Amino acid sequence: MSHAQAMLETHPRETIFDRAALLECIEACIDCAQSCTSCADACLGEEDSAGLARCIRLCLDCADVCDASGRILTRQTEPDAGVTRALLEACRQACRTCGRECERHARHHEHCRVCAGACQRCEEACGEALSALTA
Amino acid sequence: MSHAQAMLETHPRETIFDRAALLECIEACIDCAQSCTSCADACLGEEDSAGLARCIRLCLDCADVCDASGRILTRQTEPDAGVTRALLEACRQACRTCGRECERHARHHEHCRVCAGACQRCEEACGEALSALTA
Amino acid sequence: MSHAQAMLETHPRETIFDRAALLECIEACIDCAQSCTSCADACLGEEDSAGLARCIRLCLDCADVCDASGRILTRQTEPDAGVTRALLEACRQACRTCGRECERHARHHEHCRVCAGACQRCEEACGEALSALTA
Amino acid sequence: MSHAQAMLETHPRETIFDRAALLECIEACIDCAQSCTSCADACLGEEDSAGLARCIRLCLDCADVCDASGRILTRQTEPDAGVTRALLEACRQACRTCGRECERHARHHEHCRVCAGACQRCEEACGEALSALTA
Repeated sequence: MSHAQAMLETHPRETIFDRAALLECIEACIDCAQSCTSCADACLGEEDSAGLARCIRLCLDCADVCDASGRILTRQTEPDAGVTRALLEACRQACRTCGRECERHARHHEHCRVCAGACQRCEEACGEALSALTA
Repeated sequence: MSHAQAMLETHPRETIFDRAALLECIEACIDCAQSCTSCADACLGEEDSAGLARCIRLCLDCADVCDASGRILTRQTEPDAGVTRALLEACRQACRTCGRECERHARHHEHCRVCAGACQRCEEACGEALSALTA
Repeated sequence: MSHAQAMLETHPRETIFDRAALLECIEACIDCAQSCTSCADACLGEEDSAGLARCIRLCLDCADVCDASGRILTRQTEPDAGVTRALLEACRQACRTCGRECERHARHHEHCRVCAGACQRCEEACGEALSALTA
Repeated sequence: MSHAQAMLETHPRETIFDRAALLECIEACIDCAQSCTSCADACLGEEDSAGLARCIRLCLDCADVCDASGRILTRQTEPDAGVTRALLEACRQACRTCGRECERHARHHEHCRVCAGACQRCEEACGEALSALTA
């Protein structure tokens, strides 16, 4: 059991939506933030970094949004569904936009291929969390 | 001239929307993030902190969203309007929700009154930025 | 293989120290940041939250330091050993201090026990990384 | 009066060191984080961005450390002097290293000159805060 799961299971309050969807979304956000921080840095270290400016930029943005989303989803005390929903929409959008850009460089840079996978997982997890939150 | 303004004026790229609205929104996000971090901590230090759990929670969330928004608005290279817009919507929502909660405690706690003002300024700045971005 | 490991293995630059120690420290920082964000929130949701103010405070600090450390360790392009070392010292200190406080509440709150474990793992990983960096 | 100052003055707890030095350090950290985020992005947008990889990298690190420091200094409830001191040391180191790199590019890039000034102010503020904390 991951620490994230153990923390969720020992929390004194109820979760606002399905626990499995919530845990997957927390872990996907944290994982995607790390992959995007890494991909921005790997692109910066490439010889053709000048052609990767858009990929670097979108990875930095996606890391920041996923970081904030991972923190907010982690909190279960006195949640506000409206704030959570709006941030999940922004996170899904950032992951979709970043993932598509990474995909464009996946043939030339293996780290972009890996990062595109992390973005796609997080985009889907945000979608599932949004469905669970509205249900 | 603030460093934020000087950095914006020496940036090699164009801004995606009106520079005055952009600068105000960057400064409001950073200011609101700091006020919310402080208000969560001040509430935690009050004797009646147990009754302020919702205020603490919303301040922590608002600080995280404003931090991410301040960073993303600060970047002018290869911006994506869709990501910026979605995050500004989330930030406006977080500021509105947090500001209203702080307002409820403003008579008893001066720091909640100050923080409500920072939230309201940021909510308005996000609204102006969204209008400028769509125009 | 985790995304963090795959990103490290596809990075175009060399790592500044032993890859296994680096990967463990990156993952420990990210894991500890999430556990501490969760423990601060779980403490806030407890009936005896007023007696947990110090635990909440140290968890918030530890989450912020671990977040910054996880990001900086993730970057391999043009690293600066002095900055990395100073931050690892601060992170080890934050994890030790937070972990001891969580340990004090472990008998009453299971989430504090889990969080103490995440802090201890991260304190040790920072120590190993510091040794590897100085070697 | 800034919101940061108003929040400090309405906080229910004592500060752990001289209030003027504390306020200056909080504001310098937040200001430096924003300048460094901006400088990394401005460098990325330059035609000679490939030659600015070290400046981009150090600015991203400095922004992350200053962000964490600004948050931790903002908190007055149940502070831990050891954690604060270790992080201030790391922050001073990050600002010194980043400021020197920015200085090297100041003749060619005005944003690097502005950012070097923000780094120097923050390095000094951390030094003053460390002196005040040890006194």
